[in-house]
Amino acid sequence: MPSPSLDVLAIAAHRDDVEQTCGGTLLKMAGLGRRTGILDLTRGEMGTRGNAEDRQREAEAAAKILRASWREALDIPDGRVENTWENRLKVARVIRRTRPRVVILPYWKGRHPDHYTASKLGYEACFLAGLAKLDIDRALNSQQSAFSHVASAVASVVAGEQQTSGAKPHLSAAEFGTTGSRALPGGAESTRDLPAGADTASLMPHRPFKIIYATLYYDVRPTFVVDITDQFEARFESLMAYKSQFSDQEAGKDIFPARAEIRARIEAMARFYGMMAGVTYAEPFLQKEVGLVEDVTAIPVKSI
Amino acid sequence: MPSPSLDVLAIAAHRDDVEQTCGGTLLKMAGLGRRTGILDLTRGEMGTRGNAEDRQREAEAAAKILRASWREALDIPDGRVENTWENRLKVARVIRRTRPRVVILPYWKGRHPDHYTASKLGYEACFLAGLAKLDIDRALNSQQSAFSHVASAVASVVAGEQQTSGAKPHLSAAEFGTTGSRALPGGAESTRDLPAGADTASLMPHRPFKIIYATLYYDVRPTFVVDITDQFEARFESLMAYKSQFSDQEAGKDIFPARAEIRARIEAMARFYGMMAGVTYAEPFLQKEVGLVEDVTAIPVKSI
Amino acid sequence: MPSPSLDVLAIAAHRDDVEQTCGGTLLKMAGLGRRTGILDLTRGEMGTRGNAEDRQREAEAAAKILRASWREALDIPDGRVENTWENRLKVARVIRRTRPRVVILPYWKGRHPDHYTASKLGYEACFLAGLAKLDIDRALNSQQSAFSHVASAVASVVAGEQQTSGAKPHLSAAEFGTTGSRALPGGAESTRDLPAGADTASLMPHRPFKIIYATLYYDVRPTFVVDITDQFEARFESLMAYKSQFSDQEAGKDIFPARAEIRARIEAMARFYGMMAGVTYAEPFLQKEVGLVEDVTAIPVKSI
Amino acid sequence: MPSPSLDVLAIAAHRDDVEQTCGGTLLKMAGLGRRTGILDLTRGEMGTRGNAEDRQREAEAAAKILRASWREALDIPDGRVENTWENRLKVARVIRRTRPRVVILPYWKGRHPDHYTASKLGYEACFLAGLAKLDIDRALNSQQSAFSHVASAVASVVAGEQQTSGAKPHLSAAEFGTTGSRALPGGAESTRDLPAGADTASLMPHRPFKIIYATLYYDVRPTFVVDITDQFEARFESLMAYKSQFSDQEAGKDIFPARAEIRARIEAMARFYGMMAGVTYAEPFLQKEVGLVEDVTAIPVKSI
Amino acid sequence: MPSPSLDVLAIAAHRDDVEQTCGGTLLKMAGLGRRTGILDLTRGEMGTRGNAEDRQREAEAAAKILRASWREALDIPDGRVENTWENRLKVARVIRRTRPRVVILPYWKGRHPDHYTASKLGYEACFLAGLAKLDIDRALNSQQSAFSHVASAVASVVAGEQQTSGAKPHLSAAEFGTTGSRALPGGAESTRDLPAGADTASLMPHRPFKIIYATLYYDVRPTFVVDITDQFEARFESLMAYKSQFSDQEAGKDIFPARAEIRARIEAMARFYGMMAGVTYAEPFLQKEVGLVEDVTAIPVKSI
Amino acid sequence: MPSPSLDVLAIAAHRDDVEQTCGGTLLKMAGLGRRTGILDLTRGEMGTRGNAEDRQREAEAAAKILRASWREALDIPDGRVENTWENRLKVARVIRRTRPRVVILPYWKGRHPDHYTASKLGYEACFLAGLAKLDIDRALNSQQSAFSHVASAVASVVAGEQQTSGAKPHLSAAEFGTTGSRALPGGAESTRDLPAGADTASLMPHRPFKIIYATLYYDVRPTFVVDITDQFEARFESLMAYKSQFSDQEAGKDIFPARAEIRARIEAMARFYGMMAGVTYAEPFLQKEVGLVEDVTAIPVKSI
Repeated sequence: MPSPSLDVLAIAAHRDDVEQTCGGTLLKMAGLGRRTGILDLTRGEMGTRGNAEDRQREAEAAAKILRASWREALDIPDGRVENTWENRLKVARVIRRTRPRVVILPYWKGRHPDHYTASKLGYEACFLAGLAKLDIDRALNSQQSAFSHVASAVASVVAGEQQTSGAKPHLSAAEFGTTGSRALPGGAESTRDLPAGADTASLMPHRPFKIIYATLYYDVRPTFVVDITDQFEARFESLMAYKSQFSDQEAGKDIFPARAEIRARIEAMARFYGMMAGVTYAEPFLQKEVGLVEDVTAIPVKSI
Repeated sequence: MPSPSLDVLAIAAHRDDVEQTCGGTLLKMAGLGRRTGILDLTRGEMGTRGNAEDRQREAEAAAKILRASWREALDIPDGRVENTWENRLKVARVIRRTRPRVVILPYWKGRHPDHYTASKLGYEACFLAGLAKLDIDRALNSQQSAFSHVASAVASVVAGEQQTSGAKPHLSAAEFGTTGSRALPGGAESTRDLPAGADTASLMPHRPFKIIYATLYYDVRPTFVVDITDQFEARFESLMAYKSQFSDQEAGKDIFPARAEIRARIEAMARFYGMMAGVTYAEPFLQKEVGLVEDVTAIPVKSI
Repeated sequence: MPSPSLDVLAIAAHRDDVEQTCGGTLLKMAGLGRRTGILDLTRGEMGTRGNAEDRQREAEAAAKILRASWREALDIPDGRVENTWENRLKVARVIRRTRPRVVILPYWKGRHPDHYTASKLGYEACFLAGLAKLDIDRALNSQQSAFSHVASAVASVVAGEQQTSGAKPHLSAAEFGTTGSRALPGGAESTRDLPAGADTASLMPHRPFKIIYATLYYDVRPTFVVDITDQFEARFESLMAYKSQFSDQEAGKDIFPARAEIRARIEAMARFYGMMAGVTYAEPFLQKEVGLVEDVTAIPVKSI
Repeated sequence: MPSPSLDVLAIAAHRDDVEQTCGGTLLKMAGLGRRTGILDLTRGEMGTRGNAEDRQREAEAAAKILRASWREALDIPDGRVENTWENRLKVARVIRRTRPRVVILPYWKGRHPDHYTASKLGYEACFLAGLAKLDIDRALNSQQSAFSHVASAVASVVAGEQQTSGAKPHLSAAEFGTTGSRALPGGAESTRDLPAGADTASLMPHRPFKIIYATLYYDVRPTFVVDITDQFEARFESLMAYKSQFSDQEAGKDIFPARAEIRARIEAMARFYGMMAGVTYAEPFLQKEVGLVEDVTAIPVKSI
Repeated sequence: MPSPSLDVLAIAAHRDDVEQTCGGTLLKMAGLGRRTGILDLTRGEMGTRGNAEDRQREAEAAAKILRASWREALDIPDGRVENTWENRLKVARVIRRTRPRVVILPYWKGRHPDHYTASKLGYEACFLAGLAKLDIDRALNSQQSAFSHVASAVASVVAGEQQTSGAKPHLSAAEFGTTGSRALPGGAESTRDLPAGADTASLMPHRPFKIIYATLYYDVRPTFVVDITDQFEARFESLMAYKSQFSDQEAGKDIFPARAEIRARIEAMARFYGMMAGVTYAEPFLQKEVGLVEDVTAIPVKSI
Repeated sequence: MPSPSLDVLAIAAHRDDVEQTCGGTLLKMAGLGRRTGILDLTRGEMGTRGNAEDRQREAEAAAKILRASWREALDIPDGRVENTWENRLKVARVIRRTRPRVVILPYWKGRHPDHYTASKLGYEACFLAGLAKLDIDRALNSQQSAFSHVASAVASVVAGEQQTSGAKPHLSAAEFGTTGSRALPGGAESTRDLPAGADTASLMPHRPFKIIYATLYYDVRPTFVVDITDQFEARFESLMAYKSQFSDQEAGKDIFPARAEIRARIEAMARFYGMMAGVTYAEPFLQKEVGLVEDVTAIPVKSI
């Protein structure tokens, strides 16, 4: 049974990014009855602390706190988010499956290359997802089988053997770099990523109506903010659900000060953006389009 | 009886400015049941065609078309809108009298000095209007009587006479430059501008909640636009109500082409801004504050 | 016989882009006796309506209306314009063959990824085309034959056969992703794209003198505009030559309103940019360099 | 005895502005042995709470907390800071008397007109103060006596009396608007503002070496910040010294929450700017000049 | 006999400004047969070296070198260029007398307040000059006589005398601040500034076609530059004609190094702007309007 | 023996780039006792004049003049600097080996694609170099051996032979495009680039503290400049060490004028940036972070 469409899909590079940038907004949307989802492009294997499995469990816990209806991770390598055709197809596939009205992407500038690349990758995937003539699965399979075949063939020759159909190639496809296939058959995560054929009915063209950019960045002026005063505490808890990221840090120290320091920073940022709009806590966003106002007497935020 | 507060007050330098920049929005607001008003800072005596009286009649006709509840003109000289203390007090006085929630000002850049100066003057008047300790009438009278006295005194001495209280000074106050009084006693326009003492009760401090900038300017990107598809024709008619401005132009020519050319330009601009937001006709505005969004799934304007 | 150099070459992603952005300028240049050309990077196979063959015929018809001396399409996949080494070589090859003085590229921002990527691809191809030591055909053949060989070898092994020189690989090269060869031998379009060796004499290094950016985009201020008042109607007809794009749209409706709506938008944009410079219709452009003025009394466009 | 030069002079419109924008920096400079001063342009008579006398006492208490060597207030009307010749002369006079190396001005944009006007007024006064041929006292006296004479003369005539030299004019000079004299002879504040002739020796031309802009404004990126982690508490206390501003606010409520709310905002801002530079609390500044770096390995603030 | 119109009028605050910003362009225009003029707003009385008379002689010598057809100075006080109604009228009067097609103003930002204020004053004067209903002489006389009368009257009263028509007021009008008259009767300079009534025929409304901004400022990107390679030496000589400015500086030192240092700086700036456009020496300008290009193959300045 | 860390590493695309952008700064840092290094990404084989060997000798001579402690070149193809995973790993490897505190990159905009791509590539390599879990050599070997194997296998099949381990592939890896290995075994340059295993100890994670951007570009305002007045002549000599670049140019002409012209341009630029900060010669830089100032009285560069 195909799942219903999402109202909002937040796409980010790493498993705790959304919790830091737009988690309050996702929770607020859930409170308004919207279905929200989170797509993490990578699985956190490059993180200094913890491993991909720890982070998956934590991500699921965080998703519950944020009341997200859907969360998955792609298998793009951590620290190597690239805007390739294959990655665009993978993200576009998720967009067709989840059919969101609004996509939240990371801001297109940032300190971490994975963040700003995820922004561009996500945008172009939204575009691809809407092309009526694009058969994503076929394109993705061509892309992957071609490389898989090359790898297999080469491996066979290298090994002095005849290639057997379906044999696992000796060289991992993952070693082929930017265009190599990284879809691991049968993995728990990829199962969700590559649904069965019956699901293909859901892969109809879909283009999100709106794309906004979450910008928890220090020196850019947001287009608008979302009041998360009522969601702030839960949003903070969703970040704290990443125990592997924060408990190691606390090892050998008093646990509370470290957590207090993190909280102080998170709070300062939320309050700073809140003050811009006259509310207590807020999350900042950018949009590229101009606004459209129906009633000028209803525009919020005091001018003077 | 003090008149009820306005929901929206549009302030502009000249009597047909509002019709060209935010007339559609005013009409739309009236359609939503809002009370709207227009303050013209000058009376059009410098216009190449027509005179102040013609333009007053035309302004009243245009206001009717735009369904404005209130329209007045100050006596600031046309071509010489200056951001003086006295002018700020005069505008602040109107803001206290009309108590608008939203003030629409001209954009702070522009070709015509009256336009960009009106923007700054209007902003600072909004600020003054909210100062609890400022008695505007007293400040305005001090300002005006001081100059009036100087003028009178000098005139008397020059004329070799004793100054008689209430006597009309021989030198018009208007000749005293930037700070000189230009309030003409008994004039039809100034009556409305200087209400009787009973009205003073309405001169309580008031600061508008919102200030937005109407920017019918070719090369600035608006913060938002207002869809005026349904108001476009009436807005155009409100501009055409300024017959003194458009009929001279037509003298000696076929009247329709001239009007057609004006209409083509007006339409191209409204359509251009409409296209930005996916509607047919729109008027562009800037605001200085960030936005505040309650539901990200309700943000209009398609992204992609 | 090598064809004479072009004065202006417009490069765009899709077959009807040039008609919407700089078609009037191309026609005006032709009227001044300049030789103009159009390079479409893709062939339109992803377009919702019509197919590549339809679009080729339409593009030729449009080129006639615009009086272009030269028009070709590359085989870059529609919806997947990427700034790869191979694509840069392909575009650089066209620049060496056509030797334009001025290259018109799409603006470097935009809604459609193909558009902004075409801008960067085109710029870097202009750079490459001027490198004296770069043998483009050799570089392109290396690039393509390497992949072709890989594909063939793999195909052979997969099929359990010995590879036969010249045999068509079983796996289409097109499936190799960003770096795969997409040159289809013997195709009508590629014939024009890959001229015979005799033409190699024309592949001398060439760098365009000037690169300008056509920017039919709603919210960017152009550096300059070109008056296309006299070319506007023909430019509109060149767009209407894409019947596959516009006639489907009209099916089941009154044909004129749809066309009228398109025309109204096209006209509003052209008029908007025209008003910026005091002419009726214009097309907007950006350039990165500062201007150089010989006579300040001859600078057009009224200031005040 | 002329007082020694100041190292830093902070100029602001209102008596508690400096405490909110650069108080921590002033205190830090004092800790480094620098002599600091504060010039408040107005005396706070328009403030909703308290009066000018209260605010003077509070300003002195705050100055002690910030360890400022010097603090004075000019008599420019609160809510009416204007960039007039007379005001420029008054500020320039203070600059010549205090001879600062660095002047801190408010940022040139802002919500409050007094703030942004103070920025321009302060800048132009720094310029005037350095003009060798400008005799500020003579210029100021001319300016003031001319108006004083006009006022007196007029007053006499109005009153039907002969003017007596030195008699106090019946019309307060303060009523003459932008250029009227507001120097009240013998007032406690003006004594400090108008030193005796012996002090004139100190009125030699002086131009500050450096002008920087304190910008506690929500949406502008600072050029640099100053780490005030060690000064943060004292800076907050200096603001709390303005009891008339903060105790009224607390009347009828639990006093602590109100103060806690103020503190939370102040802290969020300081922490936000601190995070930009990797310190706990900071104050933001803009400068117009480029920087000059002697040792690139000594540039602070981590990049990545 | 009214003098013929100017093609170009450069307006600047001080007598050697034009020589440093657009002198090469003026000379080049003269070489193309254009009539050029220079309006200096002030007379240099605040300059550290020399006096107004020296500077007048030097300005005339410099004008000869630059082959300017016309040069005058207004009587606006040096160091106090203000954008007042009176000053705007004075400059507008010059614009009507000289009727330039192009006006060159200083850039609207700068270190010296006189420079950026001159930019705004000049712009608004261009606007006023075109108002058909504005009688500049009448407006200017009203303005001046009003103040003159006030001054005279007051002076009389102060002195206990009856005012005698035409008597020289005891208080110089110059002491009245921003709006006081500074027209010195009978001065050589004011004679040129206030032509006889016969000349009034030339005071017909006139608005320049084009306003450009000379921007010899270090960190702004020009819109365009003018190649002054052939004019560079003469332009440098026109600056050196200000002996009072440069010979004092050299007193007590080797004259050549000082001059060499000035030349090195002037040359570096001219060369820097020249490099932007591929020429040896150039002067930079800004314009606010978009450009209008007739032939894209004729756009100068290499892109790549 | 592992070499000591560098204080400053300048990364540029071509062998004479550093000499033109930040050579003076490198020399100045050496004079302050800092260890400096230069990484050239390419070897200059596309240069119009000379060849890679000439340029290597010249680069070494220039490095001596600039007193650099370390200089190497990578084997990225000249004219084809791409931001690939492999190139990022190669640069990251150098960063781990040299462990610089400060990295100087080219400005992120520019005329030459190699320059702006080097900027992004260098930034992302700095990021990768700091990832604790990234084993660069393993990642690089996987990347390279995968492609090498493919190439070998294919070559074997094509040639109808059995692949022999270690045999040189018939198809140069360099032909595989953007991701192909270009590491030539045993080459003098690659020896330095690929140190023996003993050196692996030095490949610990390392992230530079500071990244700044050298911007010898005409129309961008630098964040700061470095005074190179004392280094200017030596810096110019370091550029002149590239005899292959400058002697051809002089062939058939008087050698001095050509050199004089180059010097004049270099000098004009250095002087222009020097004037911004009140010194004779300077080099311009951008940084993305805000500054952090300890003592506001010590900020250099006069404001007024």
